[in-house]
Amino acid sequence: MKNSDPIEDLIALLSRLPGLGRRSARRAVLRMLSDPSRQMLPLADALRAAAEAVRPCEVCGNLDTFSPCRICSDSSRERGLVCVVEGVADLWALERAQAHRGLYHVLGGTLSALGGVGPEDLSIQPLLARVAEGGVEEVILALPATVDGATTTHYVMDRLAPLGVTVTRLAQGVPIGGALDVLDDGTLAAALRARR
Amino acid sequence: MKNSDPIEDLIALLSRLPGLGRRSARRAVLRMLSDPSRQMLPLADALRAAAEAVRPCEVCGNLDTFSPCRICSDSSRERGLVCVVEGVADLWALERAQAHRGLYHVLGGTLSALGGVGPEDLSIQPLLARVAEGGVEEVILALPATVDGATTTHYVMDRLAPLGVTVTRLAQGVPIGGALDVLDDGTLAAALRARR
Repeated sequence: MKNSDPIEDLIALLSRLPGLGRRSARRAVLRMLSDPSRQMLPLADALRAAAEAVRPCEVCGNLDTFSPCRICSDSSRERGLVCVVEGVADLWALERAQAHRGLYHVLGGTLSALGGVGPEDLSIQPLLARVAEGGVEEVILALPATVDGATTTHYVMDRLAPLGVTVTRLAQGVPIGGALDVLDDGTLAAALRARR
Repeated sequence: MKNSDPIEDLIALLSRLPGLGRRSARRAVLRMLSDPSRQMLPLADALRAAAEAVRPCEVCGNLDTFSPCRICSDSSRERGLVCVVEGVADLWALERAQAHRGLYHVLGGTLSALGGVGPEDLSIQPLLARVAEGGVEEVILALPATVDGATTTHYVMDRLAPLGVTVTRLAQGVPIGGALDVLDDGTLAAALRARR
């Protein structure tokens, strides 16, 4: 075979990334090999730099080069408002939307009976400790609108109840730009129930 | 913003790869950051290793860790049979199909009046020199079935003609498993003309 080991190794590693199959990994490698010093070495350096510098924030669980992360240490943000998300991807999405001016708390997943994920596997205890410490006025539960997400939302609400903090959830309804006839029945029913 | 510089840098570099947009680059980075030492450092090392070790074969233009490449230096292959391809991706595809038992010659592109690609931009002179040296009995032109590919095929055929070597081309017709009604008119007409 003509594929030398370093090329095959690289294709195998790249094709494990989400969104890249073997075919696109091969294309990417060929493209990069056309100009290795400008396309491969900078990527290698960036991977190493990120792997070495990035770590989870000890307060909220966000990924950043320092801890507490730049959101937790930003004094201009509303410290009384904490938005609970499933993962860092959701946190990034909310930041891109510039929709939230408070802080975050990353749970690291949702409760799942089938997946064997219990409360102790998630960052729920640290959230309770954070709220119990005082200073948090409202917790926004921004968990996915799935069965596991709803289960987790209810569980966290129950645990937060004795702490006397306001707990809110994201509104459910028709997405902006969403045509009604392609929406699932659950969303339509929820949007109708929550009409204003 | 919560995106630290090393993370943003990495997303920007990854999203330049063919097949990865910003969204999938972000997903890939988040996935890798969940286990940097096992997912990022090996990829960084593989990129560096490939960038440093891989170079074009001075005989055929294939990419390999040594030159002449392992195909050119494989004594079990038919040395009188040279398959001319546009790029290394095509060479790899033919090798995966195990369809060719001879050697290769990578042109590095096709002639293109619009793209400003002339004969001197392609590895045509080295091909002629290789054939003139003797030992090559048949040249198979396996260039893409596009206008530029056909132009290049004709040009190379003209240049090879005085050297007295057999020149063949890939058959055109209906792909295996291909339904007739989704094929373009050109392929259908060509398949009909070339009926056996």
